[in-house]
Amino acid sequence: MTTDQQTQRPQAAQLDAADPLATQREAFYTPDAGQLTSYLDGNSLGRPLKATAANLQNFVHDAWGSRLIRGWDEQWMDEPTRVGDRIGEVTLGAAAGQVTVGDSTSVMLYKLIRAAVDAQPGRDEIIIDRDNFPTDRFIIEGIAAERGATIKWIAPNPASGVRPADLDGILGERTAVVVLSHVAYRSGFLADAPGITNAVHRAGALMLWDLCHSVGSVPMELDAWGVDLAVGCTYKYLNGGPGSPAFAYVNAARQNRLQQPIWGWMGADNPFGMTEAYRPAEGIRRFITGTPPVLAMQPIKDMVELIASVGMDAVREKSINLTEYAIRLADELLVPMGAAIVSPRNAAERGSHITVDHPMFRDVTAKLWERGVIPDFRPPHGLRIGLSPLSTSYAEVELGVTAIRDALAELQ
Amino acid sequence: MTTDQQTQRPQAAQLDAADPLATQREAFYTPDAGQLTSYLDGNSLGRPLKATAANLQNFVHDAWGSRLIRGWDEQWMDEPTRVGDRIGEVTLGAAAGQVTVGDSTSVMLYKLIRAAVDAQPGRDEIIIDRDNFPTDRFIIEGIAAERGATIKWIAPNPASGVRPADLDGILGERTAVVVLSHVAYRSGFLADAPGITNAVHRAGALMLWDLCHSVGSVPMELDAWGVDLAVGCTYKYLNGGPGSPAFAYVNAARQNRLQQPIWGWMGADNPFGMTEAYRPAEGIRRFITGTPPVLAMQPIKDMVELIASVGMDAVREKSINLTEYAIRLADELLVPMGAAIVSPRNAAERGSHITVDHPMFRDVTAKLWERGVIPDFRPPHGLRIGLSPLSTSYAEVELGVTAIRDALAELQ
Repeated sequence: MTTDQQTQRPQAAQLDAADPLATQREAFYTPDAGQLTSYLDGNSLGRPLKATAANLQNFVHDAWGSRLIRGWDEQWMDEPTRVGDRIGEVTLGAAAGQVTVGDSTSVMLYKLIRAAVDAQPGRDEIIIDRDNFPTDRFIIEGIAAERGATIKWIAPNPASGVRPADLDGILGERTAVVVLSHVAYRSGFLADAPGITNAVHRAGALMLWDLCHSVGSVPMELDAWGVDLAVGCTYKYLNGGPGSPAFAYVNAARQNRLQQPIWGWMGADNPFGMTEAYRPAEGIRRFITGTPPVLAMQPIKDMVELIASVGMDAVREKSINLTEYAIRLADELLVPMGAAIVSPRNAAERGSHITVDHPMFRDVTAKLWERGVIPDFRPPHGLRIGLSPLSTSYAEVELGVTAIRDALAELQ
Repeated sequence: MTTDQQTQRPQAAQLDAADPLATQREAFYTPDAGQLTSYLDGNSLGRPLKATAANLQNFVHDAWGSRLIRGWDEQWMDEPTRVGDRIGEVTLGAAAGQVTVGDSTSVMLYKLIRAAVDAQPGRDEIIIDRDNFPTDRFIIEGIAAERGATIKWIAPNPASGVRPADLDGILGERTAVVVLSHVAYRSGFLADAPGITNAVHRAGALMLWDLCHSVGSVPMELDAWGVDLAVGCTYKYLNGGPGSPAFAYVNAARQNRLQQPIWGWMGADNPFGMTEAYRPAEGIRRFITGTPPVLAMQPIKDMVELIASVGMDAVREKSINLTEYAIRLADELLVPMGAAIVSPRNAAERGSHITVDHPMFRDVTAKLWERGVIPDFRPPHGLRIGLSPLSTSYAEVELGVTAIRDALAELQ
């Protein structure tokens, strides 16, 4: 490996040349020059695959436009669980019949957390950490207010995330459900999901993992870990497009003992029976509410199949290599300018993005966006470098971090 | 007008030739021969516009693929209310700032009905009719169960729908909210929305209209009628595609006194502030929950603009002419075979579909679908003929009703 003479840093071009996944980048749509120089925000919105526009057109013509209402009988009624099963198999370590696609992440969180709280009348506490993503915290605030539950807050080390020991003294016989992010949206900390799930189960409570920042970039084994509930988003590493639907995982062993509160016709046991009273469907379908967003879930399929073709282990390996490289570049180019890396340095405790803090990063981000270098910014002063393993090159990371350094220099 | 010699029925070809909206049909995608002969189910799933596939492709490439995460700042944050405002202006008689697009119809119903019930603690009754669409009834069952509210059921004349007098003795000082469909999904009955809204207001309660079967086919004046709340679907007469998002209307005068229960980040007053506690946004945005389904709401725009180009009055005029013609054909061809028309014969009390009952219509519908003649079936034995004013020709109606007659004859 040729390295930079002064720093011993490997050269990006050589890393790309040696990358077994390098050719996967060709599967993604490339915008016109000037629009995009370095995309470092796949953790917020993944890039579209080239296949997606064509597949959407085919869907509009062949499925929607030609089969019309017949499509529901022929295919679409099962689309949420068919796409869900495939997400489960390829990315979650979940056997069939436990995943469904629909709603937004926030609505899915509401449905599953309500189901967990309502099913355990003697348990009136919900545990979440103060650094969790706002929508998770807000949804739980609302549920606590309406159900008379108490929120028990974990205050983790902000530069990392929640560790099993953080639950000591908080978990107890009043705990209904624990809601944590598998990968923290800010620090990128990757939680010990099996360890925490075990601790929660020892207390007799249910565990819900928010997979938004891990699904499609970190392999998982929800079934093997005994996870009860999970919710995830599909517009980050599953490349479903802006506002694409969420998915929910409900462990088969829990499904028929839980009931979610939004009793729509598509979660009923006989949606087209036009029956008098609601009776929830058996199994995962009871977690569906309204008409499934069939058109909106089409792009997800393209990315799940691309991931399947290389496997989650290869995705994870490249993800680690990219974040290692980004940390190395940040250490070399940004830390000397007063920036601080606030993500775990141990790859085993890190997802697919890193965050670097500097008081000027809000202005830096605005300047970078004009230049087609696209990280994102999270208050108070975190710049996130998100590395989508199948669409990001090492050259892009080097160019991006160098551009951050240059913008910082201009503004200082 | 040339008429059939025996029946004095106008000839479909001549009606089409005289139809000022006939050329609008060219705007819709035409599937390959054999797929579709007569589409009579635009009231369940509207046909795609030709523009929609191309516009989706452009969206994937130019907006999502090129602007990427910048799209949120530049355009998408306001997309739910921008598209909502346009739906409001073109089809609802609603001034700007009162409509937002997102979620499914069922989830939107839950949010708004909960908001209405929760805002009026002394009022613990919800009124709905037994013939309302299952999801409306199921959602209310769930809310009544969790909030300790009582459902007061209206049992309307099944061949029509709820009239103002049906509320006498049911409306009262304990009524929180009344939930009715503007057009009944089965009979096609068009309710007296201003009259009923007035009666509900005299009782001090809130009125929620379900507009699923009227929006885009029946003109309305929600602001002038003083409607409090409304929810509608976009995959019927707004041609948004299978599972496209719902919309919600909340009268500006009520917005800040209502709070919906699903506290997602996009309904908070500062979504990207990453703040500690949820505080609802002012105005219509507080009824948003999760990340708006931006890709999924694109097709709606195409149809709203087509409707805007001809105006809702012209749409309604053709809708009435089509349903009149369908009734005439059904009287002539189906009633003699034992079928019964269970929709209002007075056009002023009818939406854009009619329902015909016959004990064999389940089997008839299956046979018709194979032949590309596509009505839909609603148990126990209703065949619905839905007439989407801008995409349906008189010839299609004649061909369709004749095919129903033929299939019935084969099966009898």
